[in-house]
Amino acid sequence: MSRIITVSREFGSGGRELGKRLADELGFAYYDREVVAALAKRTGMNEEYLEHQLEQGNMMTYSLHYGQTFTQFSPAEPAVQLMSQQCKLIKELADKSDSIFVGRAADVVLEEFKPFKLFVYADDASKLVRCRARAPEGENLSDKELIRQMKRIDKARAEYHDIISTYAWGDRNGYHLCVNTTGVEIKTVVPAIADYFRRLYE
Amino acid sequence: MSRIITVSREFGSGGRELGKRLADELGFAYYDREVVAALAKRTGMNEEYLEHQLEQGNMMTYSLHYGQTFTQFSPAEPAVQLMSQQCKLIKELADKSDSIFVGRAADVVLEEFKPFKLFVYADDASKLVRCRARAPEGENLSDKELIRQMKRIDKARAEYHDIISTYAWGDRNGYHLCVNTTGVEIKTVVPAIADYFRRLYE
Repeated sequence: MSRIITVSREFGSGGRELGKRLADELGFAYYDREVVAALAKRTGMNEEYLEHQLEQGNMMTYSLHYGQTFTQFSPAEPAVQLMSQQCKLIKELADKSDSIFVGRAADVVLEEFKPFKLFVYADDASKLVRCRARAPEGENLSDKELIRQMKRIDKARAEYHDIISTYAWGDRNGYHLCVNTTGVEIKTVVPAIADYFRRLYE
Repeated sequence: MSRIITVSREFGSGGRELGKRLADELGFAYYDREVVAALAKRTGMNEEYLEHQLEQGNMMTYSLHYGQTFTQFSPAEPAVQLMSQQCKLIKELADKSDSIFVGRAADVVLEEFKPFKLFVYADDASKLVRCRARAPEGENLSDKELIRQMKRIDKARAEYHDIISTYAWGDRNGYHLCVNTTGVEIKTVVPAIADYFRRLYE
């Protein structure tokens, strides 16, 4: 069975970078937006739209937009169908090889793989710095607005996660290791996290 | 300045073992009950009594018992005086050498040392196993009673901690790394935690 690591993360905490570097360190496949790209290909739906809908977790107040082709989703419960499609796809990818998944409630979806579950977080000041560093050019949100946006995204992630989970998003009991990236250069600590994983799983 | 690691832990999670092994791995001094032993010596109060009062966090409903000698504490607020004495002692010990402190709100007390803060936790089943393994002979609490006891002790630890802290005991934001010891052999992962610390602090 493939060895799987899942990275759940607060927006701006650097969880994506941590996941990517960990995948490089361990030689694992890495999936983040790649999941949505594959889902878009499979369903014929627009990738950006899918990303927005699934990531933002607007699962209950959802209205379908169509991409290049018609979809096979039930109009009655499109959000649930979409989520279910994504879960199925995540499992297929996990089956293929040792992998790291960032977000998308993969920690819950891949429970049968007994994944190593990481939660990555940081304080607001630190997340602000990370967000500013990768913000689209021309974005000029105030700190207050940016923090509000971060919290909105985290809330949506939690909602998406908690639909299918027995533990709350971010509840330490759901994770093997919770990593605070405040003031931490991620590339410095990744080898130690890889070592922790190896010691547990090898 | 000394390098300091603090270990906060749920009762039964193996935090003490983790702290001890980490101290051995890094060649740091290790303080847990040693703090209370030194406090007893200094105040002339009974060690077991001190341990009980400070650890159980009965800070507000406290009545003084005297040890071998009279103490210098104000009878008006003995609990606060006792806590303050312990804090002072912890700082003196930290000043002496690189050290690991388990419990006693050392994460807050030693803030000026910029300690590496660990929180160690586990699920109830795993904590039960650890508690049973180290229970005094003849103890025959049911699982339910033992879990109730564990929760009572954790509540007391949280109360003690939160009197002097700006963050809640167990709130991940207060710690650098939160380690779930459920199903984990502690000695297996300690070198990776030591490595994480070295990468951050060296």
